[in-house]
Amino acid sequence: MGELLDKIEKPNDIKEMEKDELRPLAKEIRQFLVHKISHTGGHLASNLGVVELTMALHLCCNLPEDKIVWDVGHQSYTHKILTGRKDGFEHLRQFGGMSGFPKQSESDCDAFDTGHSSTSISVALGLAKARDLKKQDHKIFAVIGDGALSGGMAYEAMNNAARLKSNLVIVLNDNQMSISKNVGGMSSYLGKIRTNGNYTELKEEVENALSKLPHLGDKLTSRIRGIKDLIKRIFIPGMLFEDMGLTYIGPIDGHNIHQMVTAFQSASKMKEAVIVHVCTHKGKGYRPAEKNPSYFHGVSPFNIKDGSSRHNGETAKTYTDIFSDTILEAAKEREDIVAVSAAMPSGTGLTAMASKYPKRFFDVGIAEEHAVTFAAGMAAGGLKPVVAIYSTFLQRAYDQILHDVCIGKLPVVFAVDRAGLVGSDGETHQGIFDIAYLRSMPNMTVMAPKNAWELRQMMLFALEQNTPTAIRYSRGAAWEGLQDHQQEITMGKAEWICEGQEIALLAVGNMVETAMWVREHLKAEGQKVSVVNMRFVKPIDEEVLQKIKERHSKVVTLEEGVFNGGFGEAVSAWYEGTPMRVLNIALPDQFIEHGSVTELKKKYGLDPESITQKILSWEDEDRKA
Amino acid sequence: MGELLDKIEKPNDIKEMEKDELRPLAKEIRQFLVHKISHTGGHLASNLGVVELTMALHLCCNLPEDKIVWDVGHQSYTHKILTGRKDGFEHLRQFGGMSGFPKQSESDCDAFDTGHSSTSISVALGLAKARDLKKQDHKIFAVIGDGALSGGMAYEAMNNAARLKSNLVIVLNDNQMSISKNVGGMSSYLGKIRTNGNYTELKEEVENALSKLPHLGDKLTSRIRGIKDLIKRIFIPGMLFEDMGLTYIGPIDGHNIHQMVTAFQSASKMKEAVIVHVCTHKGKGYRPAEKNPSYFHGVSPFNIKDGSSRHNGETAKTYTDIFSDTILEAAKEREDIVAVSAAMPSGTGLTAMASKYPKRFFDVGIAEEHAVTFAAGMAAGGLKPVVAIYSTFLQRAYDQILHDVCIGKLPVVFAVDRAGLVGSDGETHQGIFDIAYLRSMPNMTVMAPKNAWELRQMMLFALEQNTPTAIRYSRGAAWEGLQDHQQEITMGKAEWICEGQEIALLAVGNMVETAMWVREHLKAEGQKVSVVNMRFVKPIDEEVLQKIKERHSKVVTLEEGVFNGGFGEAVSAWYEGTPMRVLNIALPDQFIEHGSVTELKKKYGLDPESITQKILSWEDEDRKA
Repeated sequence: MGELLDKIEKPNDIKEMEKDELRPLAKEIRQFLVHKISHTGGHLASNLGVVELTMALHLCCNLPEDKIVWDVGHQSYTHKILTGRKDGFEHLRQFGGMSGFPKQSESDCDAFDTGHSSTSISVALGLAKARDLKKQDHKIFAVIGDGALSGGMAYEAMNNAARLKSNLVIVLNDNQMSISKNVGGMSSYLGKIRTNGNYTELKEEVENALSKLPHLGDKLTSRIRGIKDLIKRIFIPGMLFEDMGLTYIGPIDGHNIHQMVTAFQSASKMKEAVIVHVCTHKGKGYRPAEKNPSYFHGVSPFNIKDGSSRHNGETAKTYTDIFSDTILEAAKEREDIVAVSAAMPSGTGLTAMASKYPKRFFDVGIAEEHAVTFAAGMAAGGLKPVVAIYSTFLQRAYDQILHDVCIGKLPVVFAVDRAGLVGSDGETHQGIFDIAYLRSMPNMTVMAPKNAWELRQMMLFALEQNTPTAIRYSRGAAWEGLQDHQQEITMGKAEWICEGQEIALLAVGNMVETAMWVREHLKAEGQKVSVVNMRFVKPIDEEVLQKIKERHSKVVTLEEGVFNGGFGEAVSAWYEGTPMRVLNIALPDQFIEHGSVTELKKKYGLDPESITQKILSWEDEDRKA
Repeated sequence: MGELLDKIEKPNDIKEMEKDELRPLAKEIRQFLVHKISHTGGHLASNLGVVELTMALHLCCNLPEDKIVWDVGHQSYTHKILTGRKDGFEHLRQFGGMSGFPKQSESDCDAFDTGHSSTSISVALGLAKARDLKKQDHKIFAVIGDGALSGGMAYEAMNNAARLKSNLVIVLNDNQMSISKNVGGMSSYLGKIRTNGNYTELKEEVENALSKLPHLGDKLTSRIRGIKDLIKRIFIPGMLFEDMGLTYIGPIDGHNIHQMVTAFQSASKMKEAVIVHVCTHKGKGYRPAEKNPSYFHGVSPFNIKDGSSRHNGETAKTYTDIFSDTILEAAKEREDIVAVSAAMPSGTGLTAMASKYPKRFFDVGIAEEHAVTFAAGMAAGGLKPVVAIYSTFLQRAYDQILHDVCIGKLPVVFAVDRAGLVGSDGETHQGIFDIAYLRSMPNMTVMAPKNAWELRQMMLFALEQNTPTAIRYSRGAAWEGLQDHQQEITMGKAEWICEGQEIALLAVGNMVETAMWVREHLKAEGQKVSVVNMRFVKPIDEEVLQKIKERHSKVVTLEEGVFNGGFGEAVSAWYEGTPMRVLNIALPDQFIEHGSVTELKKKYGLDPESITQKILSWEDEDRKA
């Protein structure tokens, strides 16, 4: 792939290279990344942005002794290359292949497994305290994007890092973006720093000018505490960080390896927490990604020449598309509908809403907690907020949903996208806990649609409610089946799909489609089972559960979520004391790795064939017993 | 209670008072608060601190049109007085009486129900957006303490408030404390502002001095963008907030009503988000509370004369005390043990650890998210962190426990204090969700001790594990019963307490004591039931569940937590397909109001008598069926 890249076989190999080989190596790495990701898909733009930054870090570090904590972690591809994992890109993010995120199980150079945003400074501070208490002296770096800096956790961690009496280097990778363009006060502030340029250039000129200052009077000087402080206060960028108690260095060109190495080395010698502000360009070096970094943030296979997708022809509408269309349509009718996104307007389908009704759309940055409580405030003020956040990221706002929305019974609608298995992002991103965590919250209604039509109906229904509602729907194409089943949505009411006998399949959301396949398979075995689309995980349709008893002796629950605390347990508990047998199909008590959704469903027994087999052997056992 | 106070009968009455009546009124309010709280107990110090602040706000507001959002909300007592709720103090925080927190159900002057920290700016920003979209023009104030400002949510909200093009006033109530003394970079920063004094006093002198400045050179002046910016940058306190895009006013004396009214009025006329920095003294006006504001933060009935507790004699050891002793003892043996608190070292029993091993104790401020991930980092660095947080506040770190601790299987010990019903703080503070939310997390072990001895053993056991563990224990005195049951703690193993037949009571934590009473009651009815101390909510002891089948046909689960997603459901699901009958005793699907734990248990059927009755009638039904 490139002769310099061939020399990189294991951690620290980069340190053996000649200085003049570094720029060509960066180029080879970019070619390698574009080439590989064009085949496998993956995170491209962010990785292209940090090639030099990663190289500079590796030049300053002894791995694995020194620790690099990657915030979010999707920008760790160059780090993977430089730690001897080039070959892994062949099967990047594929089932059984290399993860797209740091994984301690892959390499001891991955200091911490990440996936969600804004955790790196907390982790690094913990590693630093551990190092100090154990009287070790390795270096610790946290690499955090300016997007991740809008997450409250990062601020909580900076607030505490200010007290550290030994070294920790926070590399602020400022590319002016999260997945979309960054927003908010901190983002504007960083923008001003970038414009104002580098302190070091100016320092001399300033000192010269200040030497000519007239006497300011005792009262003033005593308050200013020395001319040095005054100089800093006027001219040093990053005073916000200095005010918080961190030492600031920057801004530095994030594509100049030499400058960064110098900064990282001097930063890592200080006896405190230092923030090194590095400016990078997302997508750097690959024109299509530079032009459209949001699209190339996470991308499916593409043609290198022009960046066009390798997908041919029409793509089916996703659940996200349906949500997008529906909220737009509803917003047209009702002026009180507003939408909130946490830095993912495109991923959650709110781009159209943002452009059509900009005053009623709010991108709050990577700040799920604020997103939810801000929505609670709007609901308390008489609006009808819709919060669209991926299931896995909504975990960040557990307390806000419970404490700020549910206690006050506020009519916030949660559009819980990417619920269930999400595939190639793996452990950190699977949306498999939301049924369990939302179901235990009082006053919350939890729905899941069987198909495209039903998501639209559930959205419209949710917008009519005066209490908190959540709709969970999966990633990818919205099912277009069962179009002839369009029974009106009623609070807490399930929908009978097929009447059968003996066995009833109770399916949640996308598992209705699976249930229909299971039904076909069982039909081939001579069994005619019922299928019920539950629609409501909460409140559960007790009338339907009751009715099922009439002609069935067995119930199978189907959900794409963890078993513990999930829908299946609720059904089992409900049938307690009746002769009804219940079989629960759900995910086991473990984190689910990356792979295609199809592969994962097969592995964990959520595909129609596995479920059918499980039902048949369950019946066998039962007959034997 | 005071003749001026008598004039306050309804909202806005304070605005009818003469200017020279305000100071005397403040004094009467303080006397009233001290008098009332000395009888009922409640939050004292914080309320004494904000008497004038609250009066100033009420003088600027038309209630209920204008909105005041109280962060946390325990400092809303003067607000309650001024909105006509004096009489409520007779039964403050008592079952059926007035809540100690804002409650929309009590008054339309309570803009939002609060209880947890750092939510107010998000809520107020939501209310502001709702106001703007609805073309209304009322005022909106958020009152947030400097302690609550260490919570990441507050920062997320400020980051977004910076973009607001209309008014919102954030009153920063700076008393240099959360419950304990404040910590971290932001806290030091506020300290510096307070020392530097007020901008307005200085402004003239500064402008005069600057008029004598020599020419700075084009390059410089262009970068400084005007002399006004320069002045601000040198002399205005609060540039951190200005840098974030908020307008800053302050610092202002929080006991000077006139100064505050002026500041609030001018702040509420601006077309943006303004932060008014007000300095108050926690406990102001009552000597014992001024001297020891932490103790008088939340206090039980006391003698007004010297502030001494009305409790006579020895108080029983609490679970918190046992935890405190045990971690200290363990920390002496093992140098890798460290402890983390989120602004509550005293409440969680870490004061001794903090003073004995200051380098191994970390108070991170009100920042539960950071607390957990910081601990994860320390665990990854080879330490054994113990995170002690109340059950209800640990909700804030749901994602951090799941994503940063459980995925990496890191050996963090969670000391989940105040689990179950907590009593007089009500809805926002009951620790009734932790079983449900912790149980659905892979790799997590969840324990609950039956008595004092067992908490100690579980702590020592948890410290030996290499995976995440949580121990939940309740508020108040640790039970000293069943001292003769000291079977060693083994992973996932329950403890048989009494062998009986027919019915087995499976109890979690403090419900073992309850189960023993139920057993006595049932004995009187001629039944001899078994009692099992489950010890582990997760992993559940399947061997014991199996063994129970031998001599029992009925099982009763007992837990102080919500039913949905809880332990009982898990047991019901486990017995699915067996003839075993299961009765679940747990809390219903609703928020639980304030009152004594005893009263609440009675109301919700968790006391021995109610449970006994429920079991007896359950058996009756069963016989009839």
